[in-house]
Amino acid sequence: MTTVDELWVLLRKSVTMRDSVRASLAEADGRVLREPVMSPQDQPAFDRSAVDGFVVLSSDDSPSFRVVDEIRAGQWKQRKLGRGEAMKIATGAAVPCEGCEVVMLEDAVEDGAAVRLKQRGRGNIRLRGEDASTGDILVAVGRKISAGVAGLLATAGCTSPLVTRRLSVLHVATGGEIVPPEAEPEAGQIRDANSAMVGAWARPRGLQLTQARVSEDMPALLRAIEGERDLLLVSGGSSVGGHDNTAKALAEAGFEILVSQVAVRPGRPVIVGRRGDSWAFGLPGNPLSHFVCLHLFVAAAVAAMEGGSPRPRVRNRIVAAAVAGNPRETWWPAIAESRMIRPLRWRSSGDLTSLARADALLRVPPSGIAAGDEAEFIRAL
Amino acid sequence: MTTVDELWVLLRKSVTMRDSVRASLAEADGRVLREPVMSPQDQPAFDRSAVDGFVVLSSDDSPSFRVVDEIRAGQWKQRKLGRGEAMKIATGAAVPCEGCEVVMLEDAVEDGAAVRLKQRGRGNIRLRGEDASTGDILVAVGRKISAGVAGLLATAGCTSPLVTRRLSVLHVATGGEIVPPEAEPEAGQIRDANSAMVGAWARPRGLQLTQARVSEDMPALLRAIEGERDLLLVSGGSSVGGHDNTAKALAEAGFEILVSQVAVRPGRPVIVGRRGDSWAFGLPGNPLSHFVCLHLFVAAAVAAMEGGSPRPRVRNRIVAAAVAGNPRETWWPAIAESRMIRPLRWRSSGDLTSLARADALLRVPPSGIAAGDEAEFIRAL
Repeated sequence: MTTVDELWVLLRKSVTMRDSVRASLAEADGRVLREPVMSPQDQPAFDRSAVDGFVVLSSDDSPSFRVVDEIRAGQWKQRKLGRGEAMKIATGAAVPCEGCEVVMLEDAVEDGAAVRLKQRGRGNIRLRGEDASTGDILVAVGRKISAGVAGLLATAGCTSPLVTRRLSVLHVATGGEIVPPEAEPEAGQIRDANSAMVGAWARPRGLQLTQARVSEDMPALLRAIEGERDLLLVSGGSSVGGHDNTAKALAEAGFEILVSQVAVRPGRPVIVGRRGDSWAFGLPGNPLSHFVCLHLFVAAAVAAMEGGSPRPRVRNRIVAAAVAGNPRETWWPAIAESRMIRPLRWRSSGDLTSLARADALLRVPPSGIAAGDEAEFIRAL
Repeated sequence: MTTVDELWVLLRKSVTMRDSVRASLAEADGRVLREPVMSPQDQPAFDRSAVDGFVVLSSDDSPSFRVVDEIRAGQWKQRKLGRGEAMKIATGAAVPCEGCEVVMLEDAVEDGAAVRLKQRGRGNIRLRGEDASTGDILVAVGRKISAGVAGLLATAGCTSPLVTRRLSVLHVATGGEIVPPEAEPEAGQIRDANSAMVGAWARPRGLQLTQARVSEDMPALLRAIEGERDLLLVSGGSSVGGHDNTAKALAEAGFEILVSQVAVRPGRPVIVGRRGDSWAFGLPGNPLSHFVCLHLFVAAAVAAMEGGSPRPRVRNRIVAAAVAGNPRETWWPAIAESRMIRPLRWRSSGDLTSLARADALLRVPPSGIAAGDEAEFIRAL
């Protein structure tokens, strides 16, 4: 049986990054940057006033200044200031010459065309190149384009960043017992939870998802998984029969089966297959197991394809209540609070009610966790 | 000057929740649930086998059993088992009668039509109603619909959850010095970073965003802000002049100005106005200030309109390096690591380079923070 760490290593070593494309800033958010973005000019590009006020020569200790002009943001009014001369200047406006300082409006007393200045010597100028020089790397390769990064790219004039192309994903829900969520299950049947779950998981991640629902019979499954895409997810019936069907169908479709069981609870019956650059996951049909495997394994493959780190970001926190161990390591539904992580009531892999509140999965080693221990967890939303 | 806490209180008390609508599960992710979702039936709805195996009467200690039938997942084959009788059963399949137990396939030795069973007494049945009873609340009001919640809603047959309608937001970037990101700035000009930032901020939050860019002149600004929407954001020129313009334009458009300065760094020139149910924010044009005010204040208003908590989720962590205080409380760009929060190099509110790496804002009180202190922060992406 493959361990969780072994599967992460396999994915890190074997899953290849997808092609990159240029995207508009409006289409790039959430995607991984594939080339460094340099500053095309000094930042700031010119000496800028940090405040509204009056600009004078630093060396000029005149008791009063004559206001000879006004500079608004966006204007370019370079001129030498003479002794006793000041210009009114707006925040963000270009300072007219070197050797100047700006005195805040609040420290100035205006008197007609003259002004007296208190609080000299503070500067209040953001100097050209203070934050970055031309050619400095502003954003490194591998960064996800968040709101802050998008703003920085716009500042640098990088309006078509090079990012990983969108990944294509097919999710096929199988199982003789499942009916669509809008149907009324007959005796012995249950509603398909996994299609809705994967949909809500894939959308904020920008994945190009298609979905299908088939019974467990082999020809239907084989037809459903035809074609090429980056990722194929088959949520099997959790039965041994269903599980075997998925492995058989993947093998028949040309996938090399690399993993057929993972030492994890919930989620043991995980199949991992590869066909060229395309990867397939056979995931347990039980929704909580499905949830855990999506966050532990499928997310890792997605990250590797996008050019990020394929190991989920594992954090540490004090655990609020004891959790019993199991021979297989367990990823237990939990709520991550500021100082504690709180395991949720969870009885069996069939108990879905914790999905309503879990925002984290707590890693429980075989020896279990005592209350007050520090333990690892990942975010899971 | 209004404090950050006072502004949060104001927003919590005064911003009203928007109407709710029914959305399909595919459209509901990320939105706030507005009615509790009950379990329409017991969960599980029938006694289900937790494993692949053989079902026999618990009281039956026969040395060997005759396999009289097979039950697959989704089938309903209720029957009384006789002494010495077993049925093969799949994981998830309905147990045929009461008083039964299931023995795992791994603990069974099959011999033609007979089977010998080891490891009796484990049960391996998930009992009807074990996780939830009919009418139990599965998901509470106010929860955001994440992947896990979507799966749970599907299980409950709740395919049209009641959620807050999408919010309409207009963002207007103003300032004499700004040019579009794709333009080459002339001397004294800078590129507009805030439109791209707000775009990348609004999309994953499901906001219906429209955007405009106008110079600072009043008639253009008044035309741009015409009409009704939930939220109006004006990124002012950061100059006093620009700031005044925004306040004047908002007042002219019928907004009551409730706040005109906030004691926060960066970001002091924040204007908050209200017109009926509609709220307006005048935000500083400086991109880092814009970023901070989006996450501190605009996010709080959005959350209140959606029906969530209008105070951002403030967490606590040990700070890796000292940060100097300022009379105004500071929200300092930082990286939140598992055990530490690491303040980024940040010189002035004009220094945007920290936007490339910040994923958090550290709250720095006027007294400053020493390395090793615990301090508050919010996530900011």
